[in-house]
Amino acid sequence: MNQGRPREFDIDRALEAATGQFWAVGYEATSLTDLLRVMKLSKSSLYQTFGSKQALFIKCLGHYQQSMTDKLLQQLARSASPKEFLHHFLQEVVAEAGGRATKKGCFLVNSANELSQRDSEVRQAVATGSAQMSKVFRRAFEQAIALGEMAAPASLDAVVDYFVIAVSGLRTMVKAGMRKEDLLPVIELIMRTVE
Amino acid sequence: MNQGRPREFDIDRALEAATGQFWAVGYEATSLTDLLRVMKLSKSSLYQTFGSKQALFIKCLGHYQQSMTDKLLQQLARSASPKEFLHHFLQEVVAEAGGRATKKGCFLVNSANELSQRDSEVRQAVATGSAQMSKVFRRAFEQAIALGEMAAPASLDAVVDYFVIAVSGLRTMVKAGMRKEDLLPVIELIMRTVE
Repeated sequence: MNQGRPREFDIDRALEAATGQFWAVGYEATSLTDLLRVMKLSKSSLYQTFGSKQALFIKCLGHYQQSMTDKLLQQLARSASPKEFLHHFLQEVVAEAGGRATKKGCFLVNSANELSQRDSEVRQAVATGSAQMSKVFRRAFEQAIALGEMAAPASLDAVVDYFVIAVSGLRTMVKAGMRKEDLLPVIELIMRTVE
Repeated sequence: MNQGRPREFDIDRALEAATGQFWAVGYEATSLTDLLRVMKLSKSSLYQTFGSKQALFIKCLGHYQQSMTDKLLQQLARSASPKEFLHHFLQEVVAEAGGRATKKGCFLVNSANELSQRDSEVRQAVATGSAQMSKVFRRAFEQAIALGEMAAPASLDAVVDYFVIAVSGLRTMVKAGMRKEDLLPVIELIMRTVE
């Protein structure tokens, strides 16, 4: 019965599994054996379909970035207040803090930190992903300004970059073990800059 | 002539070399062969002196943290304006951006991102280092408030955490390739929150 199933179905599932693995422990710490196990593929299928561990990793980054962007644009479209959407995004980042579950952080930020210095293709994929996230934040800020929720800043570019940097720093500190109750007041300071 | 040279001399030099290696490429990507080469030690000397790659890494983190803290406290003591010291610190972080040299970032932030999720001893060492840096920033903020350079905030803890998070986010974005001219206006937004 599975003979007619399109190859793409398996590729998507395999990509999800590989993303989960890379995201959980990073690129270097992921072995070929790990990938074959979670993707349920033979070595030859993996190489035939994705080329190499590095090429697979780049595909995972693209896949992750696309789902994140889609999810956020839907949230923004549904939100009555774009400023509240931004505030809520920061709260979601901090919500990971202090839980007993593994704090995976953001796959893009993790990859930037682990590899972007050494691998130009990863750097490019992270830059594309980061640019997509920035576009979502920019749209939220533009809507907030249009609705009078915040004053037009001297430079919208700087405000968007500031927000991206604040998110990245928050994620690192969540992973480093800073407590949620210490991070929540910081969110208010971050939002104060974009009033 | 070298017979009387204390063993500690070699340990310090070896520790510096190992720190440079771990800092440049990370923990996982550093092989035992790399360590033996840069530290100029035999395998047995390395294990006898430092115990394991992981124990050596923890020692390197402690060594780095101590030198950073000493350097910053000296800078703060020499600075006429504690607020300018903080501003200057952010400018130094951004100064790495866009240069052709490898952007090593901060050894503590890199280690937090690579390992603190998987290794509780690394997490502890990063937390200690991060706490030491926070203490330096706190002292600068306290002096800035005492000198009337900034208003006393509702929560000094939150301001210090905010600054640490901003520094961490800046470092990640420098490594991800954000340009210096884009980061400089962000510094002004960060400093605005602590006016």
